[in-house]
Amino acid sequence: MSDTTSSNAMWGGRFAAGPDAIMEAINASIGFDQRLAKQDIEGSRAHAAMLAAQGIISDDDAKAIREGLLTVLSEIEGGTFPFKTELEDIHMNVEARLKDIVGEPAGRLHTGRSRNDQVAVDFRLWVRDQCDAAEVALTALMRALLGQADDGADWVMPGFTHLQVAQPVTWGHHMMAYVEMFARDRARFADARARMNESPLGAAALAGTSFPLDRQMTATALGFDRPMANSLDAVAARDFALEFLSAASICAMHLSRLAEELVIWSSAQFRFVSMSDRWSTGSSIMPQKRNPDAAELLRAKLGRIFGANVALMTVMKGLPLTYSKDMQEDKEQVFDAADNLMLGLAAMAGMVADMKARPDDLRVAAAMGFSTATDLADWLVRELGLPFRDAHHVTGSLVAMAETKGIDLPDLSLSDMRSVHDGITDAIFDVLGVDNSVRSRTSYGGTAPDNVRAQIARWTDALGKEVKS
Amino acid sequence: MSDTTSSNAMWGGRFAAGPDAIMEAINASIGFDQRLAKQDIEGSRAHAAMLAAQGIISDDDAKAIREGLLTVLSEIEGGTFPFKTELEDIHMNVEARLKDIVGEPAGRLHTGRSRNDQVAVDFRLWVRDQCDAAEVALTALMRALLGQADDGADWVMPGFTHLQVAQPVTWGHHMMAYVEMFARDRARFADARARMNESPLGAAALAGTSFPLDRQMTATALGFDRPMANSLDAVAARDFALEFLSAASICAMHLSRLAEELVIWSSAQFRFVSMSDRWSTGSSIMPQKRNPDAAELLRAKLGRIFGANVALMTVMKGLPLTYSKDMQEDKEQVFDAADNLMLGLAAMAGMVADMKARPDDLRVAAAMGFSTATDLADWLVRELGLPFRDAHHVTGSLVAMAETKGIDLPDLSLSDMRSVHDGITDAIFDVLGVDNSVRSRTSYGGTAPDNVRAQIARWTDALGKEVKS
Amino acid sequence: MSDTTSSNAMWGGRFAAGPDAIMEAINASIGFDQRLAKQDIEGSRAHAAMLAAQGIISDDDAKAIREGLLTVLSEIEGGTFPFKTELEDIHMNVEARLKDIVGEPAGRLHTGRSRNDQVAVDFRLWVRDQCDAAEVALTALMRALLGQADDGADWVMPGFTHLQVAQPVTWGHHMMAYVEMFARDRARFADARARMNESPLGAAALAGTSFPLDRQMTATALGFDRPMANSLDAVAARDFALEFLSAASICAMHLSRLAEELVIWSSAQFRFVSMSDRWSTGSSIMPQKRNPDAAELLRAKLGRIFGANVALMTVMKGLPLTYSKDMQEDKEQVFDAADNLMLGLAAMAGMVADMKARPDDLRVAAAMGFSTATDLADWLVRELGLPFRDAHHVTGSLVAMAETKGIDLPDLSLSDMRSVHDGITDAIFDVLGVDNSVRSRTSYGGTAPDNVRAQIARWTDALGKEVKS
Amino acid sequence: MSDTTSSNAMWGGRFAAGPDAIMEAINASIGFDQRLAKQDIEGSRAHAAMLAAQGIISDDDAKAIREGLLTVLSEIEGGTFPFKTELEDIHMNVEARLKDIVGEPAGRLHTGRSRNDQVAVDFRLWVRDQCDAAEVALTALMRALLGQADDGADWVMPGFTHLQVAQPVTWGHHMMAYVEMFARDRARFADARARMNESPLGAAALAGTSFPLDRQMTATALGFDRPMANSLDAVAARDFALEFLSAASICAMHLSRLAEELVIWSSAQFRFVSMSDRWSTGSSIMPQKRNPDAAELLRAKLGRIFGANVALMTVMKGLPLTYSKDMQEDKEQVFDAADNLMLGLAAMAGMVADMKARPDDLRVAAAMGFSTATDLADWLVRELGLPFRDAHHVTGSLVAMAETKGIDLPDLSLSDMRSVHDGITDAIFDVLGVDNSVRSRTSYGGTAPDNVRAQIARWTDALGKEVKS
Repeated sequence: MSDTTSSNAMWGGRFAAGPDAIMEAINASIGFDQRLAKQDIEGSRAHAAMLAAQGIISDDDAKAIREGLLTVLSEIEGGTFPFKTELEDIHMNVEARLKDIVGEPAGRLHTGRSRNDQVAVDFRLWVRDQCDAAEVALTALMRALLGQADDGADWVMPGFTHLQVAQPVTWGHHMMAYVEMFARDRARFADARARMNESPLGAAALAGTSFPLDRQMTATALGFDRPMANSLDAVAARDFALEFLSAASICAMHLSRLAEELVIWSSAQFRFVSMSDRWSTGSSIMPQKRNPDAAELLRAKLGRIFGANVALMTVMKGLPLTYSKDMQEDKEQVFDAADNLMLGLAAMAGMVADMKARPDDLRVAAAMGFSTATDLADWLVRELGLPFRDAHHVTGSLVAMAETKGIDLPDLSLSDMRSVHDGITDAIFDVLGVDNSVRSRTSYGGTAPDNVRAQIARWTDALGKEVKS
Repeated sequence: MSDTTSSNAMWGGRFAAGPDAIMEAINASIGFDQRLAKQDIEGSRAHAAMLAAQGIISDDDAKAIREGLLTVLSEIEGGTFPFKTELEDIHMNVEARLKDIVGEPAGRLHTGRSRNDQVAVDFRLWVRDQCDAAEVALTALMRALLGQADDGADWVMPGFTHLQVAQPVTWGHHMMAYVEMFARDRARFADARARMNESPLGAAALAGTSFPLDRQMTATALGFDRPMANSLDAVAARDFALEFLSAASICAMHLSRLAEELVIWSSAQFRFVSMSDRWSTGSSIMPQKRNPDAAELLRAKLGRIFGANVALMTVMKGLPLTYSKDMQEDKEQVFDAADNLMLGLAAMAGMVADMKARPDDLRVAAAMGFSTATDLADWLVRELGLPFRDAHHVTGSLVAMAETKGIDLPDLSLSDMRSVHDGITDAIFDVLGVDNSVRSRTSYGGTAPDNVRAQIARWTDALGKEVKS
Repeated sequence: MSDTTSSNAMWGGRFAAGPDAIMEAINASIGFDQRLAKQDIEGSRAHAAMLAAQGIISDDDAKAIREGLLTVLSEIEGGTFPFKTELEDIHMNVEARLKDIVGEPAGRLHTGRSRNDQVAVDFRLWVRDQCDAAEVALTALMRALLGQADDGADWVMPGFTHLQVAQPVTWGHHMMAYVEMFARDRARFADARARMNESPLGAAALAGTSFPLDRQMTATALGFDRPMANSLDAVAARDFALEFLSAASICAMHLSRLAEELVIWSSAQFRFVSMSDRWSTGSSIMPQKRNPDAAELLRAKLGRIFGANVALMTVMKGLPLTYSKDMQEDKEQVFDAADNLMLGLAAMAGMVADMKARPDDLRVAAAMGFSTATDLADWLVRELGLPFRDAHHVTGSLVAMAETKGIDLPDLSLSDMRSVHDGITDAIFDVLGVDNSVRSRTSYGGTAPDNVRAQIARWTDALGKEVKS
Repeated sequence: MSDTTSSNAMWGGRFAAGPDAIMEAINASIGFDQRLAKQDIEGSRAHAAMLAAQGIISDDDAKAIREGLLTVLSEIEGGTFPFKTELEDIHMNVEARLKDIVGEPAGRLHTGRSRNDQVAVDFRLWVRDQCDAAEVALTALMRALLGQADDGADWVMPGFTHLQVAQPVTWGHHMMAYVEMFARDRARFADARARMNESPLGAAALAGTSFPLDRQMTATALGFDRPMANSLDAVAARDFALEFLSAASICAMHLSRLAEELVIWSSAQFRFVSMSDRWSTGSSIMPQKRNPDAAELLRAKLGRIFGANVALMTVMKGLPLTYSKDMQEDKEQVFDAADNLMLGLAAMAGMVADMKARPDDLRVAAAMGFSTATDLADWLVRELGLPFRDAHHVTGSLVAMAETKGIDLPDLSLSDMRSVHDGITDAIFDVLGVDNSVRSRTSYGGTAPDNVRAQIARWTDALGKEVKS
């Protein structure tokens, strides 16, 4: 605050000395909290209407305030609003400008309100909007995955554990696994939204107020389910922000897993997918490179988003009630995490929609590494009645034999097989192909193409639109 | 695994060389996953019953397996079970012992199942139990807080912002703020529980199976709402554990805030509460000390619990589907976090129940620091019709005057007051006492004792029992 | 990149489709990496000089490049540089502008270099500068603490454990404890700087180059101790950034401890210090408040800085060699952490310099809580030869007696004391006063004022200037 | 503590009520701090010797104490020591047992000492030992890497950026990159050790003591460089533990990168290495699997170790001086992190020593993806004098041509090449082979085999022993 005698510093008369540049840098929040402008104005408009309805201010004052605030909003949205750092935060910037516009009534807006409940309501509205945005973005991503699943419901590919080929699965099945994950992420945002959807407005500084506020009225106007029941809690709580960051972190974790797969699948060694040029870049020195940059950056976003979670959790540790200035550090973390999550979801939806799987390469890879050994073991159990553990040992011996010979399981002769267990018949060969393998996995949730198609249909229906719309 | 030829090493025949001591140390999980014994046996019993119902194994085999497993469970619970590190994990320990007891049928238990879905179901059941335990423990803590609130619904104490006295509130109101926070924590565990309550059993290694399993049957037997819809997801997902850790972290954050307050309130300078000797300790060199050890340790628990959250999130970052051995690191983190959370909740409930507030000290402190300045400002608005911002400036001048004179606001003379604003009448003195102040905060959620009592009644009713039962 | 046919996209000819807005948002780094402009230009100037010295480019080209780069730098510093998002990063922006200025020679600058080693050298130089800045800022903070210590080398105050009064210490001693902590922080930055002070320049993309570079020459020109010995490591390493973030986090932890003390000491209940108005703010609704905002914000900075550490550590987890795009997330985290650390150190130095301790309040507080009980126990050991554990029990009984009577230890009568241990003489009273207590703690590092003054002298000398200069 | 009248509870007489089971669970540390037994006894023996040398206790008492402590140590090491939870921690367990053994002199040991400085010295000695252990373990790992590098100094393999083949490098060069990283890790532990190597012993509770201790004597006896200069700092500091955890985290990050590479390289798609059976395991259901379990677990260890770092940092945030009980949470985190780091380093050294690269597969992979495109561009610069940026464009066109034709760069005809730039001669083909490529990278730190061998020699010499000894 360069002008220490400014009447805009509300407590100006109280302090002999003014904060200097360091203090301004450490204290001012207008650099970031202007992102709350829309929410701040919504909250103030609701507050003014309620003050008038309760007879605390006049209808004329309320009307002037409410219209003035719309003017302020249009200035902000139009980019013409004169933000001033010496007014410190968005709340004082809006109020000061309101005073310019409507004069004396502006001074009545803050009746029965404090910056503490004001910032709480603004921030809560903002985070609530992000929950909604996350749901929309996750739905779009799920649709993109459904589209891929639909294309390749029966494309055979390797299922991995430990990045080792384990059993054949289908492309569609793999895509649908992520649909399930992102659906849970979406539900987490919905739960967080429902829990945070209570209004702190009217808690005033921390103790409530003697003005006869109608908190239910402002809550309803702002789309909240109800007013918060304890004024201390209303201004002190930030668990809603942490719950958003937790849901965002878990979602980013899922993104990081899919991104890692895309990076690995794009390698020259895997060649499972071809990423669109839209989501790749080249190299300044190696002209031949097509780097899966977007996937790599999405993989990294977990760091950024979870870092924000750690930051805010550390900030909140051990803070006595109610408001402490420490809590001003909440917003930038949530802003950054939300921005990066939304960007990440949009980019992933785009990448998934654009990528091309290579069915032939997937199919060849699926047959590697004796991937139908389990089918062989299961056949021994089912057809010969071997206990599973015995069947497992027989299979192990057959795999070892094939490995020694440098051939695959289906290439062993029947006599080779019978040398390990003489109950084996040539019906065994029916289960050793990858197509037979995936078709046989018909247990609920299994990878059989018909199962996969049923899941696609279920989700397509649940998302309420045609896939690929 | 010291004996590399051991038939217990399932893949023994496959590997020429055996892992040595380092590998055993890094690989064996029996040291910690034996905590899953009960869940493992429940899961296996449900699986065996289903295998028989579907005709995959005989009823006699299923009966032998199910009874044998109960014997194993009683051995484990009785402390006589011979855990063997060379069997690596709880699953193989149980199965090997089952074979000792029931012989050949034991080998049929693993039909249509893999360690991947087995460990997924065990761990999910364990975490689900912890969600239930957290709800119980949080309810007990809420009851302890309600008891305190009921005792002191009208005890006046300072409400703080920035650890500076702001406005008078009541002890009951402050306690009820934590009831609200812990209620939200409880709801987070309930949501997490509902979301994770799907059965992975039957996903087998990752692709489902060709055996005609009835996954709904095992899901129902284990109290799950339904089987998981995608087998890859079933064995790869750990978001349920991360959601538990997130809820636990946020809850621990709330505990840390209350614990910090207890530490500060116990200081010789504050003297707001006296902690019970049960929750305090002394000093080896300073005989006079009564340290709030339990509160300090609870404050620290956030570190431990959130550290576990960070650990597992880092582990899961970028893991391709489906199972990777990295995920073995999930259990110790969740075990440690859950143990410390439950301990922390129990200790906090005990501390809160036992602590004695000092109403006289609270009352004196409430009057410090011109804490009714806001009441004065509100009076100016309400009675004289000043805009709030003007009232604020008048109040600031009066506070400055009182501070200069070294007296409190109610000790200013009327003429002093009128020298600042001549509209002031002696009705002003009615709002300057702390009791009047708290009584006046009647807006919903405000600190007026009647409000507080209404909230206590609401929560007492909601918790379904008498407070202090 | 709005213009997908732009020749500025180096790999433009290679890709049929251009990245769209999402990709630009996720990929472009110019929004933040322009902070590397100075380092980028330094690095390029050194590279150009070396290329000429080695005969790889002509002296004329080198001269044109080097002068052109100075022009670019002056444009950037003067705020006239036309940053373009479609040029993606600072490196391409600088090079493109260089081409505008000097024409064809600009195209020769990148000979034997890649963006990989270029960004590595830029970022390393930037972090190195921050290590230097941290050392300067820490030294200023240590001086401020020395100033406080010098003022109050013999002001008696309570020494706390568990926030309970334990034993009397001096203000100077407490201040000097932080000097020790910040001195170790300073040393950590110095160690980090020394370790990172190797040049990656000349590693090219990852494998080195066939051009006859003189890497020692560029290393020397840029103030590095030597070139890095392995080109893969040179472009892949980010441990230098993590070490900076680790040192910054530990330093921020120390700041958080001091900040917490300032917040508590500023409370109406403690009244140990008065913070300057420069570092405090008021309240919008409570005119009397003087909030220790700066201290609170500094307490919170640990969250932000350590959050950055978590973020980058998570990003780096499991990245295969060498460069992955994930690593682009490194810079914003380090920029934000460094900015906040420097701001925090400056603010703390200012707060410490400006704050006023209240020696009288400190002294009264020091005598509370039987704080000289240990002196009594030590007297029993020293004068009566009791084993320490017995002396401890005797002291405990005397404290309990005093507590019951509601008096302090020195107020017990000799006969009271002798009723507990009859060897006690009235010489005991000499050790029960707080001044005697602190004067007696003459063991090295103890709180005796002469000790404290010796430490002040040692550090004043070490810092090489007068305290309070 | 079940027996509240126990004389072992030092403050037993002071408290009316005893802590119950919850408090014991939350308070007792003997379950983990018994790992400090050796350090505790070392510290006590040094303290006793000093007390006698200073005439504070008799030589006979000191002798009895010092010998008694050796007896205690032998009991602990022999597994016969009767640990008692009701004695809470290692310090009281040792002292109580000492009293059993030597009687009354045991009570004199604690003269001029407190549990605060005692635990500080014990823990510091323990962490110091771990720094030494880390250096040893890192050296062993570096030797294993040197062994691999020596075997394959000239085996050509792909150098990757973005997991895309970029340029050919050598196996030895890649191994040596990790030698550099682990060398810096080693240096971080050495720096941490040097910084923490100061003795807190003699700080007593927090203020120093009136007994004439010789702190230099105990410091020397315990291998410390000097006593700490401030008694408050001595008992309050935990930055030494955080610095250890930071160094461990960065080291674990490096391990995670190498582990990720081993996992990827072990896949059927890459086949770059074959992991020894010692470090792999099989599958319970898929007999053919050979899973890189050890590498996966090491990749995960970063989570665990960095989780401990987060935990302790969170614990320490905002703790006022000096000791707070929160700090009891320090030890388990450091124990767990250190154990896992040492295990991880040992396992990685074993895995690296045992693994077999597949030089033929590496060589084939190195030639994929136009990996010598940069060589081509450099040739255009060097031989034809093209500016680098122009050469880059020419190369891009040639790569596009080869890609269209489905051939590799060396398979383009000279006329094809000249159609893009007519200055090209058939000398171009000399630089397009992978062997030529790596041989040409002779800049310092580059991948040319002679460079690599020079680095191997340098490090072999520095490590002071023959590689593979």
